[in-house]
Amino acid sequence: MSSGPLFERIALIGIGLVGSSVARRVKRDGLARSVVCCAKSERSRKTALALGIVDGAYARAEACVEGADLVMLCTPLGTYEALAEAIAPHLAKGAILTDVGSVKEQAIAQIAPHVPAGVHFVPGHPVAGTEHSGPESGFAELFDGRWCILTPTEGTDEAATEKLAEFWRRCGMSIERLDPKHHDIVLAITSHLPHLIAYCIVGTATHLEELTNSEVIKFAAGGFRDFTRIAASDPVMWRDVFLNNRDAVLEMLGRFSEDLTALQRMVRYGQGDMLEEWFTRTRAVRRGLIEAKQA
Amino acid sequence: MSSGPLFERIALIGIGLVGSSVARRVKRDGLARSVVCCAKSERSRKTALALGIVDGAYARAEACVEGADLVMLCTPLGTYEALAEAIAPHLAKGAILTDVGSVKEQAIAQIAPHVPAGVHFVPGHPVAGTEHSGPESGFAELFDGRWCILTPTEGTDEAATEKLAEFWRRCGMSIERLDPKHHDIVLAITSHLPHLIAYCIVGTATHLEELTNSEVIKFAAGGFRDFTRIAASDPVMWRDVFLNNRDAVLEMLGRFSEDLTALQRMVRYGQGDMLEEWFTRTRAVRRGLIEAKQA
Repeated sequence: MSSGPLFERIALIGIGLVGSSVARRVKRDGLARSVVCCAKSERSRKTALALGIVDGAYARAEACVEGADLVMLCTPLGTYEALAEAIAPHLAKGAILTDVGSVKEQAIAQIAPHVPAGVHFVPGHPVAGTEHSGPESGFAELFDGRWCILTPTEGTDEAATEKLAEFWRRCGMSIERLDPKHHDIVLAITSHLPHLIAYCIVGTATHLEELTNSEVIKFAAGGFRDFTRIAASDPVMWRDVFLNNRDAVLEMLGRFSEDLTALQRMVRYGQGDMLEEWFTRTRAVRRGLIEAKQA
Repeated sequence: MSSGPLFERIALIGIGLVGSSVARRVKRDGLARSVVCCAKSERSRKTALALGIVDGAYARAEACVEGADLVMLCTPLGTYEALAEAIAPHLAKGAILTDVGSVKEQAIAQIAPHVPAGVHFVPGHPVAGTEHSGPESGFAELFDGRWCILTPTEGTDEAATEKLAEFWRRCGMSIERLDPKHHDIVLAITSHLPHLIAYCIVGTATHLEELTNSEVIKFAAGGFRDFTRIAASDPVMWRDVFLNNRDAVLEMLGRFSEDLTALQRMVRYGQGDMLEEWFTRTRAVRRGLIEAKQA
């Protein structure tokens, strides 16, 4: 495995948590000769430049992608279609275009039709994150030990897919290739539904007239605080996840609600043995995570 | 504030996460002249002695409490009634009897009737924990910066309540006094419901025939892993929490389910503005936690 730069110029469209973590990693490990970013907000552009994590910061994506051999969409899913259309005429021949979106079927549906011949679109999803947003929140180690899912479809260039895989490996990730639809089902249960539920319960807590917010906050150490962390994730990014993975999320939500009704019934009728059996089974999943170093 | 021992002899009934953390704190900071524990399992007794965190380990609670001026029940809620009945004749005159249970109305209902005259029962709940169990899992810092809720009722001795409060303060906690019923409602939303939901979704994930457990585990970094941690909490302790706080848990679960149905509807009909507004509101709760140093 070479340790030299993999790309000449990486263009990051969006410089939030993921984009700025990629920029830091690229700089730290010399993964490209230069890395530039695009951000709508002047504040983000100034911050990225001041942090020294990019060599240039553009207001318009069209200018940002010029001459880049890797273009990565790191903005919320809802921006993909307009961005793809706007940058298409400006993409360099032979460039790899990828994204980091949490939903792959819709990402492909919105980007692929605009990709010009000679540009290699490889949809991707580095499964890593925190609840923080913005260029200040990134860090070079975000991806270490995590999995990056690539979802090439029929016709995706194999050499481009392998080059992108190598890029993410050099960011510290392991690679899995999945069918886009299967990706969306797996992520619906491992990521999207957990977020929806966390957003829900934190909302429920704020509605309660019997207790003050300060009580909820004081006693959050009993379990609630982990939910508040997840429910502090970027509202626009997550809005777009739910709008773009509707069917899989609704399917998983249906199953979750059935299970919750079953648990509710066990509580109501005092079925202690059944509760204990359920809670013992879920404990084993944690052991699996610890063994797989994903805890 | 004196730094000498607060008690002559502390008897911990149960030496799991909380009991063994108390033992370690008592030893570290000299909060009592001696601390002993009781555990049904020989392995737990041997471990506690080998760790040097107790001065004696008993198989029977009756023997453990003899001569103790602080007796603390650190076992699952379902054991309280039988334990209270068994130890009652052996409690020293003037001793403080307390518990650390996560449900207070039922704890009081099960313990109070057995408390002999001259013994001061002060119900308590140190709101702190991890997903780990057993005497090896405790640590002296578990309580630092967290809140301990005391729920004295009419007739609870004020001097005993204040002495117990001082004990928990010396363990690093802040003290709040609440009515037992109100405690159970607050904890239902900040602790019990989060646990039930985490147990639920981890169970749902294991039922899915479309995906393998290894996929769930690999991609857990997307949010699921926090739920697996909570759903790895002690099955018997949590079974007893749900059996003993049924009404408040069912009430909170009803509200949560209503809210979840509302969110489900927003996802189904693509109501992005409403989703974004909800997710923005929950983000503010996290800021509250961070400001209160409970994050």
